[in-house]
Amino acid sequence: MRVVAALGGNALLRRGEAPEAERQRLNIGRAVAALADVARHHELVVTHGNGPQVGLLAIQAASYAGAAPTPLDVLGAETEGMIGYLLEQELRNALPGRDVATLLTQVVIDPDDPAFARPTKPIGPVYAEQEALALAEARGWTLAPDEGGFRRVVPSPEPGEIVELSTIRLLVDAGVLVVCAGGGGIPVTEGPAGALHGVEAVIDKDLAGERLASALDADLLLLLTDVSAVERDRGTAAASPIQAATPSELRRLRFPSGSMGPKVEAACRFVERGGARAAIGALEDASAVAAGDAGTQVTGDQPVGRSADATRA
Amino acid sequence: MRVVAALGGNALLRRGEAPEAERQRLNIGRAVAALADVARHHELVVTHGNGPQVGLLAIQAASYAGAAPTPLDVLGAETEGMIGYLLEQELRNALPGRDVATLLTQVVIDPDDPAFARPTKPIGPVYAEQEALALAEARGWTLAPDEGGFRRVVPSPEPGEIVELSTIRLLVDAGVLVVCAGGGGIPVTEGPAGALHGVEAVIDKDLAGERLASALDADLLLLLTDVSAVERDRGTAAASPIQAATPSELRRLRFPSGSMGPKVEAACRFVERGGARAAIGALEDASAVAAGDAGTQVTGDQPVGRSADATRA
Repeated sequence: MRVVAALGGNALLRRGEAPEAERQRLNIGRAVAALADVARHHELVVTHGNGPQVGLLAIQAASYAGAAPTPLDVLGAETEGMIGYLLEQELRNALPGRDVATLLTQVVIDPDDPAFARPTKPIGPVYAEQEALALAEARGWTLAPDEGGFRRVVPSPEPGEIVELSTIRLLVDAGVLVVCAGGGGIPVTEGPAGALHGVEAVIDKDLAGERLASALDADLLLLLTDVSAVERDRGTAAASPIQAATPSELRRLRFPSGSMGPKVEAACRFVERGGARAAIGALEDASAVAAGDAGTQVTGDQPVGRSADATRA
Repeated sequence: MRVVAALGGNALLRRGEAPEAERQRLNIGRAVAALADVARHHELVVTHGNGPQVGLLAIQAASYAGAAPTPLDVLGAETEGMIGYLLEQELRNALPGRDVATLLTQVVIDPDDPAFARPTKPIGPVYAEQEALALAEARGWTLAPDEGGFRRVVPSPEPGEIVELSTIRLLVDAGVLVVCAGGGGIPVTEGPAGALHGVEAVIDKDLAGERLASALDADLLLLLTDVSAVERDRGTAAASPIQAATPSELRRLRFPSGSMGPKVEAACRFVERGGARAAIGALEDASAVAAGDAGTQVTGDQPVGRSADATRA
């Protein structure tokens, strides 16, 4: 089957870890070990987050006075190169003889998206309050409370058309393992004559992954993160993992907007748009989640067990 | 005909200009205006330098104390994303309806290449002597005299196999305008079991462009820079442009190692390895240089005029 796998920024970089190259290389090696088994049995397209990485590049750029700060679209392109390189290299090393390609990807957004009036996507490290206030003042950043401190937040508009879709499809159809739409894709607006122009935003990579999976007619959208399943009543004594659900069942529940929310939304959209199955689970369980044996399986009206069996073939 | 065009870092960023995103966007727009006419009439593969850009990212990374400095292979990957993005976006805007793809590219080098003992490739800005001494001390960089000051120099090993070649060929054969091997490609070594590993170096983009052009059986290797032709006795009263030459004629002359040297070497190698024609000239003359009507035309034993006419068809 054709699988689109979205790797969370947290799966590539644990909370609190500095996004240094060697640390990322080790974590990506671990991620690829988990993904390789999926790649051995299925067509695989890999996409990934870039929150910690784009935040680091923004700080590094702002720390050097010799050049103007780099806009977020260009920083996003840099992270597609950086993370894509590390992923592709480890994928090639884990899958000798397999063609792997990393494609720069732009995603069209609506310049009137309400997200521009209300930045929500956290990028970069956690700052103490004093430092956060100073950064807001000095750089015009918006900062919001996060993980006991403050993080920079940027607009996260809805993903639209994937600019490079025809090329991605060409490569996937030819059997190439494609890494693309990194960081949710570089956000661009499309002018009246079709002219593309980058904008300062970061698209959610799970929602972009859903667009990619739907556009490629994937059989499975695999959303991999650092928790083993979606939980009902998470953080309470009544917490329990959800093994299987339909979009309408999931849409009755509430999930944190910064982490599980977009994954559940992406899974629901994929199935609602005709995708056979979406699954949310832990990166290290990738193979079992893809097989329908772990994580949270999201399907339409058919009985879940049969659907998982059918798509497993 | 199939054309591989290599854009000099100096063509994208004039000497002394800070490699800021907006400046690069303007210059790349200018470069693409010159290239678009070539793209309208021929299959085109674009590669580009990254000297100023990889140097800036290295300084930005080193200016922030919160994370370890990023190694050069990862910085190279970042520049492939950054420059590739700006190039692809402008190419798409200039050529509506044309598929354009930017592919992350690794190039295999020999870990025993003598270049590692003798860094020669300048990256980043020009420093005054005091600052250069301080940087050499603090960061272990090698700095060499350049343009009246000092620039950081890094090893520049010979390019070998292009890791993503089969994918590049697939896209070119399908009519996609491909941007690849940016910055000469990310230098990697190939272990005994074929495992790839990045190394701290920057490959010359003209020599990598030659490898690309030869491997793709290109009809023309187009080396575009900020001077209109290779000159005999450049910088003297007897200076005169060379309109046409064979590799053996060019190999009798001497050219500056940092700028024209690698272009002449790349042109000679391409023709010696069976390529019909290489041409060196100004970016703004791209179309005329490609047509054989400007710049320095390098061909084998056949009369140059006929060769140029034949390949123009």
